[in-house]
Amino acid sequence: MPIYNAPIRDMQFVIHEMLNAKQLGDYDKYSDVDTDLIDAILEESGKFATDVLTPLNAVGDHEGCTRHADGSVTTPTGFKDAFKQMAENGWTALGHDPEFGGQGLPGVLGIAAGEMQSSANMAFAMYPGLTNGAIKAIEIGGSPEQKQTYLPKMVSCEWTGTMNLTEPHCGTDLGMLKTKAVPNPDGSYKITGQKIFISAGEHDMSDNIIHLVLARIEGAPAGVKGISLFIVPKFKLDADGNPAEKNAVSCGSIEEKMGIHGNSTCVMNYDDAEGYLIGEENKGLRVMFVMMNRARLDVGMQGLAQSEVAYQNAAMYAKDRTQGRALTGPVNDNGPADPIIVHPDVRRMLMDTKAFNEAGRALVYWSALLEDLEHVHPDEAFREKADDYLGLLTPVIKGYLTDMAMKTTIDCQQIFGGHGFIEEWGMSQFVRDTRIALIYEGANGVQALDLVGRKLARNGGRALKTLSAEIIEFLGEHKENEKLTDFTDPLKGASKKLQEATMWLMQNGMTNPNNAGAGSTDYMHMMGLTMLAYMWAKMAVTAQAAIDAGSNEAFYQNKLITGRYFMLRMLPQIDAHLAKMKTGAEPVMALEAAAF
Amino acid sequence: MPIYNAPIRDMQFVIHEMLNAKQLGDYDKYSDVDTDLIDAILEESGKFATDVLTPLNAVGDHEGCTRHADGSVTTPTGFKDAFKQMAENGWTALGHDPEFGGQGLPGVLGIAAGEMQSSANMAFAMYPGLTNGAIKAIEIGGSPEQKQTYLPKMVSCEWTGTMNLTEPHCGTDLGMLKTKAVPNPDGSYKITGQKIFISAGEHDMSDNIIHLVLARIEGAPAGVKGISLFIVPKFKLDADGNPAEKNAVSCGSIEEKMGIHGNSTCVMNYDDAEGYLIGEENKGLRVMFVMMNRARLDVGMQGLAQSEVAYQNAAMYAKDRTQGRALTGPVNDNGPADPIIVHPDVRRMLMDTKAFNEAGRALVYWSALLEDLEHVHPDEAFREKADDYLGLLTPVIKGYLTDMAMKTTIDCQQIFGGHGFIEEWGMSQFVRDTRIALIYEGANGVQALDLVGRKLARNGGRALKTLSAEIIEFLGEHKENEKLTDFTDPLKGASKKLQEATMWLMQNGMTNPNNAGAGSTDYMHMMGLTMLAYMWAKMAVTAQAAIDAGSNEAFYQNKLITGRYFMLRMLPQIDAHLAKMKTGAEPVMALEAAAF
Repeated sequence: MPIYNAPIRDMQFVIHEMLNAKQLGDYDKYSDVDTDLIDAILEESGKFATDVLTPLNAVGDHEGCTRHADGSVTTPTGFKDAFKQMAENGWTALGHDPEFGGQGLPGVLGIAAGEMQSSANMAFAMYPGLTNGAIKAIEIGGSPEQKQTYLPKMVSCEWTGTMNLTEPHCGTDLGMLKTKAVPNPDGSYKITGQKIFISAGEHDMSDNIIHLVLARIEGAPAGVKGISLFIVPKFKLDADGNPAEKNAVSCGSIEEKMGIHGNSTCVMNYDDAEGYLIGEENKGLRVMFVMMNRARLDVGMQGLAQSEVAYQNAAMYAKDRTQGRALTGPVNDNGPADPIIVHPDVRRMLMDTKAFNEAGRALVYWSALLEDLEHVHPDEAFREKADDYLGLLTPVIKGYLTDMAMKTTIDCQQIFGGHGFIEEWGMSQFVRDTRIALIYEGANGVQALDLVGRKLARNGGRALKTLSAEIIEFLGEHKENEKLTDFTDPLKGASKKLQEATMWLMQNGMTNPNNAGAGSTDYMHMMGLTMLAYMWAKMAVTAQAAIDAGSNEAFYQNKLITGRYFMLRMLPQIDAHLAKMKTGAEPVMALEAAAF
Repeated sequence: MPIYNAPIRDMQFVIHEMLNAKQLGDYDKYSDVDTDLIDAILEESGKFATDVLTPLNAVGDHEGCTRHADGSVTTPTGFKDAFKQMAENGWTALGHDPEFGGQGLPGVLGIAAGEMQSSANMAFAMYPGLTNGAIKAIEIGGSPEQKQTYLPKMVSCEWTGTMNLTEPHCGTDLGMLKTKAVPNPDGSYKITGQKIFISAGEHDMSDNIIHLVLARIEGAPAGVKGISLFIVPKFKLDADGNPAEKNAVSCGSIEEKMGIHGNSTCVMNYDDAEGYLIGEENKGLRVMFVMMNRARLDVGMQGLAQSEVAYQNAAMYAKDRTQGRALTGPVNDNGPADPIIVHPDVRRMLMDTKAFNEAGRALVYWSALLEDLEHVHPDEAFREKADDYLGLLTPVIKGYLTDMAMKTTIDCQQIFGGHGFIEEWGMSQFVRDTRIALIYEGANGVQALDLVGRKLARNGGRALKTLSAEIIEFLGEHKENEKLTDFTDPLKGASKKLQEATMWLMQNGMTNPNNAGAGSTDYMHMMGLTMLAYMWAKMAVTAQAAIDAGSNEAFYQNKLITGRYFMLRMLPQIDAHLAKMKTGAEPVMALEAAAF
């Protein structure tokens, strides 16, 4: 059975040594936050993930969810108990507002705990994950009364939440959605329509399910300008706010999927269900998009989480499985063969994954910290910068990290040879579960388009300009340090190439927007590579400083080795992306559609 | 349900126009071969694949195989009938020796038919595929009596075959295998041991199953020098050669796998089973390796086949599914949205796949034709060249084409968005089925090592020298043709880079073999890219000639467009591989094993 142990030392390195997250303790909102608190949460969260969630991962994959004739759904064996335990231990309330029963801890800790939970059991972690999203939407758009009615029960996970966007004929293009809302005299609405791919749409783990549903109020404008957001509880609430009468919403079927079998992905049918408008009429997408931007960071984290757990198992297997001899002569003379970690091509796959995971984690946690600081930092310029960076980096984190996680989980599976293809070792599940992360919350191609078509140009390109200036300043600070040139030189090169690509986009995307579209994925990967190079350079500074200060912990040398690997063996990919991108739209669009 | 239509026009273009395969008709062995015969076989084979095998693909995936308490195995609904039909129509006998009931047709036709069958239903096509491998092994190493006893029934597929190599503790490293063979007084052997991952190991579709089993005769040398090959029939034969008494071989369990569910992958237990030596004692691997080299071409073809069927479905979906608007303005004014094929990033994925499929097919068919010609060509120098090329290209076809097929099937699945993740549309199955092709018949890392460690250096590097000289000659022939510079210039560049990489390997692999190992996968991809560039350049010559001769078939212009896409948008990847490779083994091997 696959193992998972939270990579706490790596997390601490990022959170404490690189990001100095305890700085959050300087602000009233996070005054409890210090090193000890952070460490305690990391430790406990890691234990919960390893002891409770990991053993249920294969169970969930194997059993899946079951829909019964009455439309009810049971989750895999053990999920309900684990969910109860998770809620009781407060893990679901970690980042939420104390006003509604949350612990009010910063997002950077929430994402670390979320990474652990997703590594251990991604399908399971989606239940509280979707609830978080729904809480966020109600926080953003709900009335004070709606918040009081729903949030405490959702923060405690007595009730869970869902997001209902997709319909059979529309996913990316929400302007086409048909689900309709008809006003009732009492101010509520009758919601009617069908939603598909609804994660956690129906299950047996909570007393109520709060569906957030996009629908079109009768007479609303066509397209995206006529979409409103509604709360539709599975059970309507009685006068005391307790679940009572069943609402006219039901699970029509559960999808058979490639992965995340432990999560119940439902077709939800609304048949004059009672719903309550969130915020203003026809302004539903605003709320949804704020919520979704946060969810996209979580999806990037999910990719990272799968890559991490796949790596841990592959590394263990590569050190244990003996097969063949090292090319440079046997290292295990007493055995019939050497452990396969001696083979350079096996190492290549492990190093690719390790170097990706560690920098990917730094990028995700840094973004989460920026989001925390955005809400408390006194300096408006800083808050503006944080918001700019988050806007710019969100599609990169979602799209690039999950694209990479697809590669790394497949590589880690490959290390197992035939044993990777059979389900027994669990490597197949990591690949199959990862697959959805490239699709949901906006397919990766949509992320790439969001990046080049929207985020890059916003405020005259301010976000990337600021970020580039920050990198140049960083390079300037360290240019005298010869110990760091293995990091600063490649970062400088990558940053220049990204700039060249950006210039190309500005010049050519104006004349023909298809030039931007055709280069969007290459550009997203270029930015991903540059950001990971930046993260590695920053981590190298931190590690080198520890070494210079006299630490002989091998951990720091290993950081430098892993970072150098990234610069030498992974970053060169950026040139291929630049070359491809600069060929423009013509080769991509030349063929008549009928010729496909 | 997914569709499949054999890409006959593309196949004809390669087989007739590019390769002129009817040249085989000049030789006695293939005197029946002409254009009409080839076309008739392509047409009929395509019909069989579409009408009979395609509808069973999802059935096989969904039902899988079932092992019963008595150790018997039933295949998915419809498989048995389809297999009977396949054998009766002569599809299994296509390429085999007429002496044993085969049709004696060339391998280039066999691989075209095989591609269609694998596109339509890979798990099904493996049953006759494995039988082909076993036939080949008996042809190579068996005695005249063994051939007469087994081959006619196997060619007709009344009996099927298997290959038994892997044991729980060894796959790649066959030197460790433990299955033992004890001589009986009558010249037969008692075979005892456990084999795993045995495709088609037990099933209900044939009257007998002929297992070819690697085992170690008591007292044989240790390691790979003490391995012999045995025939172990499921049912021993009576005096008339008919299946009679059950042999002591049984299926212990069926593996639960990520894909190819329709194929029964068995743990096979041999318990003093009666077996018959093939060829000489301790020389079993020789036979197995000749057979396996051929099987590796078939695995490359399987990757291509999955990429082709995934492409067809993705192209259909992209033309049908409407979502969003073209960046350059609506093209479907009367509808609520444009078909998603207007989006450059969707096109990018389709074009990557299309450009890969068409050149990959050319490479595989060219190799198959070389193998056909190797056996009949009067010129010894040509035969030597054909053998050299096959040796060199086999690991590239197996490793590079399946690596690419993993990418393309995932891309094609991505085009479906959420609909790609659910099993209903079949795109998940193409990804899951493709996954095994990177692993079996030697994992792709093993292919890369075979290429740089063995094939490249054989006969003083003769194979690549000859092939490079052929490319230079080709470039010389067409250097005056300005219409072809979009193809010849990039090919020239790729060829030089491959040469540079080869030089680097020669210089640095000698001093430290880990340099070769660490660069092996990058090098394999460089050779794959160069070979696809060569195939595209040759196809461009063919297409341009047709256009120059007055053809106005859009097909030829589309070939040029697709080939140009490859050169501009895919070939630049070669630089990244070269840069990575040239950093050598140090960054890959620097970390202590314990630090993973």
